[in-house]
Amino acid sequence: MTSTQTTTQTSHSTMHLLNETHEPSLKSWVVSANSVTTDFPIQNLPFAIFKQKEVNQAFRGGVAIGDQVIDLEALYEKNIFTDRVQEALKACAKDQLNDFMAMGKVAWSSLRLALSKALREGASEQKVISECLVPQTDIDYALPCRIGDYTDFYTSIHHATSVGKKFRPDNPLLPNYKWVPIGYHGRSSSIEVSGQTFKRPKGQTKAPTATEPSFGPCKRLDYELEVGIFIGKGNTLGEPISIENAEDHVFGLCIFNDWSARDIQGWEYQPLGPFLSKNFASTVSPWIVTMEALAPYRQPWTRDEQDPQPMPYLESTQNRNIGAFNIQLQALLETAQMRSQVEPAVQLSQSNFNDSYWTVAQMVAHHTVNGCNLQSGDMFGSGTQSGPTPDQAGSMLELSNAGSEPISLPNGETRTFLEDGDNVIMKGWCQKEGAARIGFGEVSAIILPAE
Amino acid sequence: MTSTQTTTQTSHSTMHLLNETHEPSLKSWVVSANSVTTDFPIQNLPFAIFKQKEVNQAFRGGVAIGDQVIDLEALYEKNIFTDRVQEALKACAKDQLNDFMAMGKVAWSSLRLALSKALREGASEQKVISECLVPQTDIDYALPCRIGDYTDFYTSIHHATSVGKKFRPDNPLLPNYKWVPIGYHGRSSSIEVSGQTFKRPKGQTKAPTATEPSFGPCKRLDYELEVGIFIGKGNTLGEPISIENAEDHVFGLCIFNDWSARDIQGWEYQPLGPFLSKNFASTVSPWIVTMEALAPYRQPWTRDEQDPQPMPYLESTQNRNIGAFNIQLQALLETAQMRSQVEPAVQLSQSNFNDSYWTVAQMVAHHTVNGCNLQSGDMFGSGTQSGPTPDQAGSMLELSNAGSEPISLPNGETRTFLEDGDNVIMKGWCQKEGAARIGFGEVSAIILPAE
Repeated sequence: MTSTQTTTQTSHSTMHLLNETHEPSLKSWVVSANSVTTDFPIQNLPFAIFKQKEVNQAFRGGVAIGDQVIDLEALYEKNIFTDRVQEALKACAKDQLNDFMAMGKVAWSSLRLALSKALREGASEQKVISECLVPQTDIDYALPCRIGDYTDFYTSIHHATSVGKKFRPDNPLLPNYKWVPIGYHGRSSSIEVSGQTFKRPKGQTKAPTATEPSFGPCKRLDYELEVGIFIGKGNTLGEPISIENAEDHVFGLCIFNDWSARDIQGWEYQPLGPFLSKNFASTVSPWIVTMEALAPYRQPWTRDEQDPQPMPYLESTQNRNIGAFNIQLQALLETAQMRSQVEPAVQLSQSNFNDSYWTVAQMVAHHTVNGCNLQSGDMFGSGTQSGPTPDQAGSMLELSNAGSEPISLPNGETRTFLEDGDNVIMKGWCQKEGAARIGFGEVSAIILPAE
Repeated sequence: MTSTQTTTQTSHSTMHLLNETHEPSLKSWVVSANSVTTDFPIQNLPFAIFKQKEVNQAFRGGVAIGDQVIDLEALYEKNIFTDRVQEALKACAKDQLNDFMAMGKVAWSSLRLALSKALREGASEQKVISECLVPQTDIDYALPCRIGDYTDFYTSIHHATSVGKKFRPDNPLLPNYKWVPIGYHGRSSSIEVSGQTFKRPKGQTKAPTATEPSFGPCKRLDYELEVGIFIGKGNTLGEPISIENAEDHVFGLCIFNDWSARDIQGWEYQPLGPFLSKNFASTVSPWIVTMEALAPYRQPWTRDEQDPQPMPYLESTQNRNIGAFNIQLQALLETAQMRSQVEPAVQLSQSNFNDSYWTVAQMVAHHTVNGCNLQSGDMFGSGTQSGPTPDQAGSMLELSNAGSEPISLPNGETRTFLEDGDNVIMKGWCQKEGAARIGFGEVSAIILPAE
């Protein structure tokens, strides 16, 4: 296969997005990348920021391949690529990916193609790239970029409806939901990378029957299974991004746990929205899977005909044809007891990003329609991704019916909300016939007791 | 007066905060600083980031004195101060004040004292500092720091009650208001410095009687008269800042206009709070008045006895004794017609920050009680500062009774909400017997038509 050959198309709608880097038959000389179970085959090539454990070195960009990471700072120093690729690598050699993200699609694509070619079986670059590989078991991750602003959306109508029932039984889905891609600003400073631990937050809560609030550790600590969306190229204040151009501004996606203190949230959130119930911790997976890598898993976005159809600024043919993403999402729980007895983590739920009521392109177009500026490295949360059935719920609030129906775990433990020592692990992957399986790795974090 | 002499104390409660830099009788060899009307006498010494107009130079820190600015980069190069002061000046020589803000109270105070002494009549440093002065008419400002996260509070009970009436006539002040210092996360990227222009935002709105929302330029554009609060030293994630230590983490205050699109807000804000109704633009005054400069204007903070008293994490003796700030706030309007006819701007309202229901220390303690980390340069908005009487309302929403009572301007124009070409100007100052008058300068921005 040569660099100009095009791949077998799997559907008409994704045709213009697929190229030789997606070819399912590609194999890498990094043998672990050819395993059917790896998240990181040669068709994926996601980005992270890492350093080698116990080595005195700066954090730098890396690309995952099988069970290895390509050290992009080391690869830049090898100076084996064209100027355009070297320029992209130089931006990746820093301790934050913002500059690379700001370079835009052509730079991202050039580097992806160069790495894809150089990692293929028989590539002449094998020896020099081998010298830049580090086993993933030997590295520490940092946040992939400086997240200037973080916005959390609310794109799952299934989540919005079932949570709405608990906060507003008589009025679960508000009248604006099917018109407005609801979002709100979150806290950037407390976003950390997978592997973090954090203390159970304290705060004010008020039981429905109490006359006054009380103060203490959160009793209804929850996770939220989300997709994280990283902005690549930003826009100027006052210049909206049209839905047609929206995806050109998106660098890639990750898996995201937007921890939530439900009892604090219930008391504080009126009238200006969640605040301390959310900003004590949020955790991202280290790897960002690029929009280009996700091209084979795009699918039509539809809306029920009886629902209001999107306003013109949220409507485009491309969004209809390939606006959705077929990404499997999974939340697992490893309790302290499971960890001490070396039992595997237990699946809590599975859902799919394609059940989202609003698309990534619609989020970008909506966020900027008033002139708001996005900057490279900004992150959106998709909002909790719950599917239409109860076992596809992306939070404990939904799974335990607001704490009224304890979840039984295989080892005899039960949970309504999360307990100290619990490790919540989230995974994401894309799989379909005619395309390579690619994954997002995982995001996990352990809850420590309140102080 | 020598550097060790203490000043006349104006009240017992502020005693420990006052020092020789507050002495009202101090005069400067910068003659304009001795005017009774200047915002920037020698007792103030606020910080900004600026550059000289039409000079090819980097932005750098500056301190205002009368109608001049001390170029702190130039002053650092003069190398006339002690090591401690030079270290502070070095941090101020950058194009953002974050590093200086992170240095903490001792560094801030050392620099303030050194500048106070060097600017006094008869100071031996007069000649060398003269060489570092730039007229304020010759400079451009930038944001004083990188604002990592911006949080907007809602601390005026008068504003909360009157706005609540318009959004929820039957339920204006929610039950949590007197317990929780309500706040929410805002957008950092669209905060700009005084002098900005911005386009009227477009968005979805829905008239109460309409069956469907519509899209177009905002029809109810409003200002919000706020105090901006800049964080100096941050805290580590998971380690709350106690109310006793809260003010050690605050660098200073500015005047802040949190522009709001009321019609967009009314349709979008449920259930997760304001979003596109706020994030199209927010404007800060260039000058940050330090907490130390504000010491003479501190006063007791009280709460009605029939109101719930604060929870322990929001309660301290110091907060009771000197938690409040006597800062006069003023909003003025200059319409395009006034500008073209060279008529002066008209006062819309005046209020005082001491009417705030919650203090700065309570905002800091509340924001971090769940472990949330603050970072140097983060900003809080105080929320719209409205006083108890109708003419003290800090927004058009209140002044025009949600648009139902047009405001008559002296030139014959009327306003319910803001129109294209309107320039909203806000000022702040502190004045009381036995202390020098100090001011915040002003924040202004002109509204451009929607595109």
